[in-house]
Amino acid sequence: MGLLVVGSVALDSVQTPFSKVDEALGGSATYISLSASYFTGPIHVVGVVGEDFPKSYIQLLEDHHIDLNGLQVIEGGKTFRWAGKYHYDLNTRDTLFTELNVFENFNPVIPDHLRKSRYVCLGNIDPVLQLRVLDQLDNPKFIICDTMNYWIEGKKEELFKVLKRVNVLIINDSEARLLAHEPNLIKAAKMIRDLGVETLIIKKGEHGALLFSEETIFSAPAYPMETIVDPTGAGDTFAGGFSGYIYKTQDTSIENIKRAVIYGSTMASFCVESFSTKGLENLSYLRVQDRYRDFLSISHVDEKG
Amino acid sequence: MGLLVVGSVALDSVQTPFSKVDEALGGSATYISLSASYFTGPIHVVGVVGEDFPKSYIQLLEDHHIDLNGLQVIEGGKTFRWAGKYHYDLNTRDTLFTELNVFENFNPVIPDHLRKSRYVCLGNIDPVLQLRVLDQLDNPKFIICDTMNYWIEGKKEELFKVLKRVNVLIINDSEARLLAHEPNLIKAAKMIRDLGVETLIIKKGEHGALLFSEETIFSAPAYPMETIVDPTGAGDTFAGGFSGYIYKTQDTSIENIKRAVIYGSTMASFCVESFSTKGLENLSYLRVQDRYRDFLSISHVDEKG
Repeated sequence: MGLLVVGSVALDSVQTPFSKVDEALGGSATYISLSASYFTGPIHVVGVVGEDFPKSYIQLLEDHHIDLNGLQVIEGGKTFRWAGKYHYDLNTRDTLFTELNVFENFNPVIPDHLRKSRYVCLGNIDPVLQLRVLDQLDNPKFIICDTMNYWIEGKKEELFKVLKRVNVLIINDSEARLLAHEPNLIKAAKMIRDLGVETLIIKKGEHGALLFSEETIFSAPAYPMETIVDPTGAGDTFAGGFSGYIYKTQDTSIENIKRAVIYGSTMASFCVESFSTKGLENLSYLRVQDRYRDFLSISHVDEKG
Repeated sequence: MGLLVVGSVALDSVQTPFSKVDEALGGSATYISLSASYFTGPIHVVGVVGEDFPKSYIQLLEDHHIDLNGLQVIEGGKTFRWAGKYHYDLNTRDTLFTELNVFENFNPVIPDHLRKSRYVCLGNIDPVLQLRVLDQLDNPKFIICDTMNYWIEGKKEELFKVLKRVNVLIINDSEARLLAHEPNLIKAAKMIRDLGVETLIIKKGEHGALLFSEETIFSAPAYPMETIVDPTGAGDTFAGGFSGYIYKTQDTSIENIKRAVIYGSTMASFCVESFSTKGLENLSYLRVQDRYRDFLSISHVDEKG
């Protein structure tokens, strides 16, 4: 059946203090599916682009065995575009412009043969659309969901409905604080889990990630990076690596979810090493495995005494 | 021979948004030695107080088998006092006043019988004084050192001399960035190690700690704390737990140093749960061990696959 991914497919223009790219491949579904493609196949993307979406990007995704039958191409339409500029520390950015274009009227339609998908990754889109996807699914087993400040502030009620229906929520620390109205992350996590989130993962950038479930709190280290080229898509890439590994192993135990967090972090570390999706285009499972083992060793303590 | 601790002994007045204490027991040597006392004995403190230093505080330290023969009591002198006020997030604080008093002319004299001390923890004092301590030591094996922004900015040259002569430097993330003039912590760590620091530990508060040595980078998790009462002394307490465990085990291998980092974090987590030294006054080694195991489990991944 494969992993179902719903999200945006976009053209990103990104400036950092050191370089820039124009109309590069971007969007949450793009990063999620490219990242997941190193673990599993098939990956089915549901999203929307305009007629102007470059053939070369379609080719790139198809080369990674990503099924684009669910990708609507709107005749005469323009693809969603986003432009952003990172500050010197690469932790903060300004959005220069957002052109929703065909994304404005996006209505995610899950093709009939994918409605029985068991594993689903809902990229960061309007919670109203996330709910529409959920309504089309027939008995899913494991739903992974992302969101962002914009929806937490603007569509809280709809987002709360989504949260009650997903298994894993993946957000960053500032989103967690905002969602719970609570500065202490541990308290915020409890409050978010009380909204109905079974498993909560909070990404903390250079400080790693935290996982909260009924039975456990798990702290995953960050990869020690000296150079970050472009943080765009790191969160989606995390979600993709996480989802891909879970789908590959078909194991949703908490111990396996911990490993999936490390795989998510692993993929995100490759993502930020290059502009746009470049860091995810030419990996091998062997390289992914090597870095995963590096991650494990970073936090490993020989438990004598 | 015991663990030799050199640092300040002070009376701290602390305000948080929730409560306050006046003239509580404080100072780097105090926190270090109380923290280390749960691992080992004897602990020898070299420091200075005035005649006004409360007998009850002397008693408290002696009850923890801390040897105060090296604590100079200056006749007619006043003890070092510090007052600070924490902001709402408890991460930032303003110093309300600093009265050096007898600390202004402190000249650390290591008693003859302690000059052959093998394990030494140099608390956060003027690097000029740290050098004077080092000059009095006869063939030390393992020296752990703390410092702070004030000395990094004001006594850089002397501090650099200290760094070449110690085995472990323990600082926080902002101090590391300042010392290296580099915002990226991983780069900063490399630069600091290039100054001659064998092993560098960078504390990151709610984000845990990082250890850098020739052969390894290690990431230690933070304890998931919902309530922090008073962060004063957490860094010294970390250094004390670290030093106490190293002294107890007499093992300076990198694997054991990693465990010592977790024990340092363990003790710091007890420290911040209460005002002043209260959190360190009535522990047991059993409770320390329990929390140490909690720490290990937080970052543990079952390494299947």
